Amino acid sequence: MIQFVDVGNVIDLIAEIGVEPLLVELAGAIEDDFRRWPVFEKRPRVASHSRAGVIELMPASDGELFAFKYVNGHPGNASKGLQTVTAFGVLADVRTGYPLFLSEMTITTALRTAATSALAARYLARRNAKTMAIIGLGAQSEFQALAFRALLGVRGLRVFDVDPAAEAKFVRNLGRLGFSIARCRSAAEAVSGADIITTATADKRRATVLTDDMVAPGAHINAVGGDSPGKTELDRNILGRADVFVEFAPQTRIEGEIQQMGPDFPVTELWQVITGQAPGRRADDRITLFDSVGFAIEDFSALRFLRDRVRGTKHFSTLDLLPAPRDPRDLFGLVAGGEKAPAALRDVPPPHAA
Amino acid sequence: MIQFVDVGNVIDLIAEIGVEPLLVELAGAIEDDFRRWPVFEKRPRVASHSRAGVIELMPASDGELFAFKYVNGHPGNASKGLQTVTAFGVLADVRTGYPLFLSEMTITTALRTAATSALAARYLARRNAKTMAIIGLGAQSEFQALAFRALLGVRGLRVFDVDPAAEAKFVRNLGRLGFSIARCRSAAEAVSGADIITTATADKRRATVLTDDMVAPGAHINAVGGDSPGKTELDRNILGRADVFVEFAPQTRIEGEIQQMGPDFPVTELWQVITGQAPGRRADDRITLFDSVGFAIEDFSALRFLRDRVRGTKHFSTLDLLPAPRDPRDLFGLVAGGEKAPAALRDVPPPHAA
Repeated sequence: MIQFVDVGNVIDLIAEIGVEPLLVELAGAIEDDFRRWPVFEKRPRVASHSRAGVIELMPASDGELFAFKYVNGHPGNASKGLQTVTAFGVLADVRTGYPLFLSEMTITTALRTAATSALAARYLARRNAKTMAIIGLGAQSEFQALAFRALLGVRGLRVFDVDPAAEAKFVRNLGRLGFSIARCRSAAEAVSGADIITTATADKRRATVLTDDMVAPGAHINAVGGDSPGKTELDRNILGRADVFVEFAPQTRIEGEIQQMGPDFPVTELWQVITGQAPGRRADDRITLFDSVGFAIEDFSALRFLRDRVRGTKHFSTLDLLPAPRDPRDLFGLVAGGEKAPAALRDVPPPHAA
Repeated sequence: MIQFVDVGNVIDLIAEIGVEPLLVELAGAIEDDFRRWPVFEKRPRVASHSRAGVIELMPASDGELFAFKYVNGHPGNASKGLQTVTAFGVLADVRTGYPLFLSEMTITTALRTAATSALAARYLARRNAKTMAIIGLGAQSEFQALAFRALLGVRGLRVFDVDPAAEAKFVRNLGRLGFSIARCRSAAEAVSGADIITTATADKRRATVLTDDMVAPGAHINAVGGDSPGKTELDRNILGRADVFVEFAPQTRIEGEIQQMGPDFPVTELWQVITGQAPGRRADDRITLFDSVGFAIEDFSALRFLRDRVRGTKHFSTLDLLPAPRDPRDLFGLVAGGEKAPAALRDVPPPHAA
């Protein structure tokens, strides 16, 4: 029997903890794992690309637990009433290879992405950052806003989406929650005067959501949307001016904004900043850029967080996913013998000659 | 909602169809997919090795369906009362990226491995093969015997295991089912006079289950147990004498018996034989060797077979694995709004300053 956390369970867990406290806890779990980054087995995710989108498997292991996430990215889904990104994930015991825990990760991915963004910004943004621009008001946007308030105290939002319906949805969801929200008519207007710039657009290929002239000295850019080969959001000149931070360089060079730059373009991995091995923000007038694509260790952290958080609660069920024969070598006996013996096997069946 | 086939469902399905008819059907599904081999996206499986064993993710796609299997191999598990191999798998829609179907695959892997072995032997063994040696009487052995009878009419078995308890289990399970079973005192005795030799040992590294002198001209060797780097069963001189057939050469060169040979060691992929593009058995006195490691397309076939076979039956349930917000961009509204709105979100929460 493995533990299973479904969509309803996660919604109930969020209701119990509260979104912002949960984001703070989750960011803490991610930070803990970033601190012990070298112990993890890491690799770029395994991607299967099609014309419609991409399906990815994201494994990571710390030598005790193995985790992987299944996740898709299909920009055309929204027009069919489907989500762009869905996900689920599994934790397994490295010692036995047995899966232990299965969870929905569509909602959980939104939470962990926002928690990681805010965690990075806590190390990279100016200390007095109070206003954030959000360009792209899709499924990820509200989680970003809440994470930045919960972890950095950001309460001022300057928002823009090419689709007024997305903007209306954002304001409907967050308008009552104590933010100061400025609805802007362009990305340039949103960015103007913002300390932090979050780009989280989904449906463009090689888009230029931010041009170089829009980014003022001292800004921190949280680039969430450019996360697949051929899918970027930023003018490459911005990359040249910024100090660029990434999760796992071998993956980000394939998928992130820096796919626009050469293979030797200098980047710093975030875990090095968190452990004090590399500087984060070097001066108030530098531009810092977190070129976020989402890495498997964040999902490892999120799954472990969920498993620990549902322990002793009603927010999970169990699944009969693993057979447990009394004699482990007697799988056949379990299948064909005992109480459940199929009638056909109790008699001698006729041979089926080739 | 996705469809879910658990262990009990698979046992019930087998009871309904019968093991041998099911193996015949499953071999047909695998053969169909081997016939259209070039349309598949293929890659060596993604393996995470530890001292205790290996955890693997095995993806494959035909451009319409994406499948992957999670599978472990932990030789020390049996001594803890656990299975060496456990597995589960998922089918997803390439067009939307949505997972459709989740199934147990521990039992299903045993079935598909046996079905693939017998399918290969139908193309590679001598036409009049009637007797099979089985060395290694673990969880896979009964399925192998039944598959070879169902697909090739093999009724004579010569069996050996270093562990008498495993042999007793095998005879207990299959003794009543119309086979002629010779219990042998050594691998050499089992092999003597056998037309087909199946090696399916699990717990040795770089073992030599078969030595060169044991293999007579005309034999077909079905090498199932050597399937991981550092885990082989055959004397390398046998490889030099045999015509070697594999599933997917880039994976088998890493994991199969041929890891003992150079990177240019000549092999034929089984799909080429099945489609008539390459010869199988060239003469009655040749030694043919199916260096089987298990490839993702076989799991793709098995998952598709299961999905089709449980349709319209009671042998599945559904899981709430995917959120379905009315507006796909309004994931937050699903999480925090509506009937299930957490109390904390209906009021203005206090900011959590960094």
